[in-house]
Amino acid sequence: MAKATPPSGGKALSSSRDNVRGKLIQMGTEILSEKGFGAAGLDELLSKAGTPKGSFYYYFPSKLDFGLAVVDNYAFIWEQKLTRLLGDPNVRPLDRITNYLNEAIRGLKKYSFTRGCLVGNMSQEISNLDEAFRAKISKVFASWSEHIRNCLDQAKEAGELDRTVDTQALADFFWMGWEGAILKAKLERSTDPIEVFRKVFFDLIFAKHRS
Amino acid sequence: MAKATPPSGGKALSSSRDNVRGKLIQMGTEILSEKGFGAAGLDELLSKAGTPKGSFYYYFPSKLDFGLAVVDNYAFIWEQKLTRLLGDPNVRPLDRITNYLNEAIRGLKKYSFTRGCLVGNMSQEISNLDEAFRAKISKVFASWSEHIRNCLDQAKEAGELDRTVDTQALADFFWMGWEGAILKAKLERSTDPIEVFRKVFFDLIFAKHRS
Repeated sequence: MAKATPPSGGKALSSSRDNVRGKLIQMGTEILSEKGFGAAGLDELLSKAGTPKGSFYYYFPSKLDFGLAVVDNYAFIWEQKLTRLLGDPNVRPLDRITNYLNEAIRGLKKYSFTRGCLVGNMSQEISNLDEAFRAKISKVFASWSEHIRNCLDQAKEAGELDRTVDTQALADFFWMGWEGAILKAKLERSTDPIEVFRKVFFDLIFAKHRS
Repeated sequence: MAKATPPSGGKALSSSRDNVRGKLIQMGTEILSEKGFGAAGLDELLSKAGTPKGSFYYYFPSKLDFGLAVVDNYAFIWEQKLTRLLGDPNVRPLDRITNYLNEAIRGLKKYSFTRGCLVGNMSQEISNLDEAFRAKISKVFASWSEHIRNCLDQAKEAGELDRTVDTQALADFFWMGWEGAILKAKLERSTDPIEVFRKVFFDLIFAKHRS
């Protein structure tokens, strides 16, 4: 499809470009967190962003390009969030994981359990999506695992975690449980699954520590 | 939509009814295991089942009714599978869980990681679905948890699991981790996530047992 005239009509183009493109990506991030990619409609996006269809195709050649930009944005937001919560040197390593869970629970409640995990949603529907998403989303999960693994490694160094624990495997396991917990929280419209996940995860970790 | 003429033309109706309806549900179970409900198209279903559109509406008033029948069918298949694998009195309780995981890994490989968990897919997209699915899918998960909890309770009785373990919470946790593991297996087209899940789950359980 041909690129449309920029909505700014050429006036203050770079600033307006950034604003409209950013708004579309922000709205897309919200919609894809709720619905995944397949069910996300362009009309809903444009209505939420208050943007005409021509603008969308000015900024994004296709829905695929848009989706990839949204995943990049989600990865960026989470990279900042996980660095802030899981990299905080003033908090004990395992407590940082608790802080992350607490913030996530507040987020789920804030949006009445309608918003899940964008990359979890897209992994679920990955068989229907363009292959370009697969590598990008795998990288996001790998980075998330690294954040948790760093906490677990530091917990080991601090003597708060058994030295025999395979921290990479436990970090991957954490995110699997987390994705499942989010899924059940959405299903049950309740944070109970997250609380079960948190309790069992730490109970098991500390049992391992004591053993 | 008005009900169409039965495909049998009235001949051997009850048997033909069962066959066509069953075929549609079977194909639907396969498609929804791959794609979820939202992305599942009627055309693909009819083509796979070799059935004209009129037949579909003869058996199911709407896509919703069809979806509910598919979930019932999936629940029925899994009830049999879990009873066979997790209720086998000739196998030690925790080994039954291993048997379940082994069979699941074979299933994922058989379909090249395209088929995930039907109720997991639908939980992920639950915000977009009719409310009728929510209670039905929650019941499926509750039943699955009961199967695992029974194994864990029996492992406790056999002295293979620490008596302080909250078996209901651990059973719920198992299925959360499992759903996340399936999701990552689909994403990575690999059974590695399932193997990580299995290893860490049992390592942690046995650490708890030893503590």
